[in-house]
Amino acid sequence: MRIGLIGCGTVGSSLVSLLRDEGDLLADRLGEQIEIARIAVRDLERERDAVIDRALLTASWQEVVSDPEIEMIVELMGDVPDALETIQSALAAGKSVVSANKAVLSRHLAELEEQARLVERDIFFEAAVAGGVPLIRALRISLFGERLSRIVGIVNGTTNFVLTRMQEDGVEFEEALSKARELGYAEADPTSDLDGSDAAAKAAIMASLAFGRKVTAANVRRTGIEGISASDFLFARRNGWTIKLLAVAEHYGTAAGSTLNVEVFPALVPSSHPLAGVRDSFNAVFVEGNAVGELMFFGPGAGGMPTASAVLGDVIEAAHNLRTATRARVVIQEKASFVPTEAIFARFSISMEVLDEPGVLARVSEVFGSFEISIARMEQLEVEDGVARLVFLTHQTALHAIDRASAELEKLEVVVRLHRSFRVFA
Amino acid sequence: MRIGLIGCGTVGSSLVSLLRDEGDLLADRLGEQIEIARIAVRDLERERDAVIDRALLTASWQEVVSDPEIEMIVELMGDVPDALETIQSALAAGKSVVSANKAVLSRHLAELEEQARLVERDIFFEAAVAGGVPLIRALRISLFGERLSRIVGIVNGTTNFVLTRMQEDGVEFEEALSKARELGYAEADPTSDLDGSDAAAKAAIMASLAFGRKVTAANVRRTGIEGISASDFLFARRNGWTIKLLAVAEHYGTAAGSTLNVEVFPALVPSSHPLAGVRDSFNAVFVEGNAVGELMFFGPGAGGMPTASAVLGDVIEAAHNLRTATRARVVIQEKASFVPTEAIFARFSISMEVLDEPGVLARVSEVFGSFEISIARMEQLEVEDGVARLVFLTHQTALHAIDRASAELEKLEVVVRLHRSFRVFA
Repeated sequence: MRIGLIGCGTVGSSLVSLLRDEGDLLADRLGEQIEIARIAVRDLERERDAVIDRALLTASWQEVVSDPEIEMIVELMGDVPDALETIQSALAAGKSVVSANKAVLSRHLAELEEQARLVERDIFFEAAVAGGVPLIRALRISLFGERLSRIVGIVNGTTNFVLTRMQEDGVEFEEALSKARELGYAEADPTSDLDGSDAAAKAAIMASLAFGRKVTAANVRRTGIEGISASDFLFARRNGWTIKLLAVAEHYGTAAGSTLNVEVFPALVPSSHPLAGVRDSFNAVFVEGNAVGELMFFGPGAGGMPTASAVLGDVIEAAHNLRTATRARVVIQEKASFVPTEAIFARFSISMEVLDEPGVLARVSEVFGSFEISIARMEQLEVEDGVARLVFLTHQTALHAIDRASAELEKLEVVVRLHRSFRVFA
Repeated sequence: MRIGLIGCGTVGSSLVSLLRDEGDLLADRLGEQIEIARIAVRDLERERDAVIDRALLTASWQEVVSDPEIEMIVELMGDVPDALETIQSALAAGKSVVSANKAVLSRHLAELEEQARLVERDIFFEAAVAGGVPLIRALRISLFGERLSRIVGIVNGTTNFVLTRMQEDGVEFEEALSKARELGYAEADPTSDLDGSDAAAKAAIMASLAFGRKVTAANVRRTGIEGISASDFLFARRNGWTIKLLAVAEHYGTAAGSTLNVEVFPALVPSSHPLAGVRDSFNAVFVEGNAVGELMFFGPGAGGMPTASAVLGDVIEAAHNLRTATRARVVIQEKASFVPTEAIFARFSISMEVLDEPGVLARVSEVFGSFEISIARMEQLEVEDGVARLVFLTHQTALHAIDRASAELEKLEVVVRLHRSFRVFA
């Protein structure tokens, strides 16, 4: 089985060395050798891992995709302009495709699945969500007959590392981020991690598979982890929570049909919940289904070898399917309708530093009252230099009421600093 | 697709109602209705859930297995004498088989897989290990190309419930077991749960799949949770551990070939380890692989609906394979060789109540010394009525040295009570 590799960074090199080390074992089990026959790279001159046979390199992905001896394309280009065209060309040439390209898949999954169906080939993408964690196949096969109600994932290792350091070391955001950079858990420009857009892409892919509906990254409401402070963790801990950036995809079945809600946001998670124990750069996805109840998948969300392992799992299944002239079921990609922002309800925590003066609590409470926000619990946490910290925990409240109240609170002179609000994960 | 159900207890009834409720969704996705056409039960007269159509019932499994219109058999008989024959007859009749029968599979998996291969049908058994958790398919497909080194599971819900109650409520074994019985987490006779034999059957199945070698329950060394006391949990907690009953399957590759070690034992697990957070009757399986690193699968280990969900996932895959005239790869069942008891090394904790007299510590230490057991840490925990509690934590030590030293310690007059020893999970 000759396969073509397009893109040869960390994951690509790891895949090559994995196939070198485990090739005989695999050939034994599969009855056939898997061989990387050609590798397309952007820069032919770049120094590469010794495991890469330079004779296989080419600068042209077209050359690899059009090679008639190659039956499968592994696409590891990242979010570059011609990644979509590469996948489309590979399918058009009748090759099965394994891709780890969460950016491209979060925009074009439905059309790529449809194209694969028409040419009777597979497109697999286990490595696009939660790295080495075999979640995608579980959704595609094991849970195919399950009516899923919700998927909640910690799917971004950078932000989870930062939040874990803040939680466990009591440090502020910037210090935790420096640590993440130092240890290679954050890129030079970590914007797409911190602002939740990486997690949003993965949420779109998970939601598409879980609910069989067409969800793209543009359908995902998101907020990132910027502005979270060490004091937020103190409050959370005192109340039996920790803070996690969650990718949430929910399905609501009503008489009028079904609607989805797909979001990324930092949430207060009870310490006893399995997601609370997911530390550092690990990923985990919690799945709730009608019959099965609660499942969780946990593992490395990134890294060359774990991701290459997920790619290899796909390669093996695609190879098996090519040889037996079968293919995976397509996840039905019906159009989705989404819950409007106005219909999002949750419990929230809102905290702020205020002037420690008479009448301040009344002013603040008045704002909550005017947006019909009902307070379940309130704490005054500390007082120093004439400033007090107030933390409110609301009853079930509309998200947009919280947003509007926050805007009003920020205008109050007595409010020195309004902290981020957090949803309570329930 | 007409399927025959053999055995109709809690899981069988749940499967029938799941198919009734989700049948249309499934037919939509699969392009075909899945229909339970016949149900064999032991007792035709017994009262049954209203979802069961009594017209489908028969007392003869042979009748179901030989029905030419039935393409697949779901075997949910439990560990009864004719379960093996039922599965064999179904395969011989050219039907695919879905079974949840951990007892039968832990003894006959290799031969049943071989029979399925010869008749070109599938035998699937996702529900036999860890209930609703989709572990088996992950081992069989996603991790097929992964060189696994170890699998560590909490795969018995009864014992995990008992241990969780002891840990969290500080109660003794008997009280926790009563609670488990009260809430339906323990059967009237929980022997096979408590003595580790249920977990051992699952360990054998997991080891077979993970390492592609023939492992039966008879190859699994096991000890259960009897005799664990509340004070053991106090000691564990003080040292940052909790106590879990683990099913462990390890693979050692050496120049001389590879050997396996498959065991069930209660262990001290670091509180920060993901397995430590698996509470009550939940199951979890921790998998360590060469490339992927660490994965964990978590979910409900028992219960009608979760188990039926796992059965349904198998039914769907088997149906897809029947329609596309393909079948799952057989896990190669090479003969296994096993690590001898003499070669098992670990760190252990050993604790005992001793007379609070001069010279006692010397007597005890002498026993350890005589078996070349080196102590890493020692604590004297409490003294009352002239009795002291000693807890020793050893360096890496041979299991059989611990067993022999324990036998010697029990003979000492100064030892009032020797507690169970625990392995430290590392």
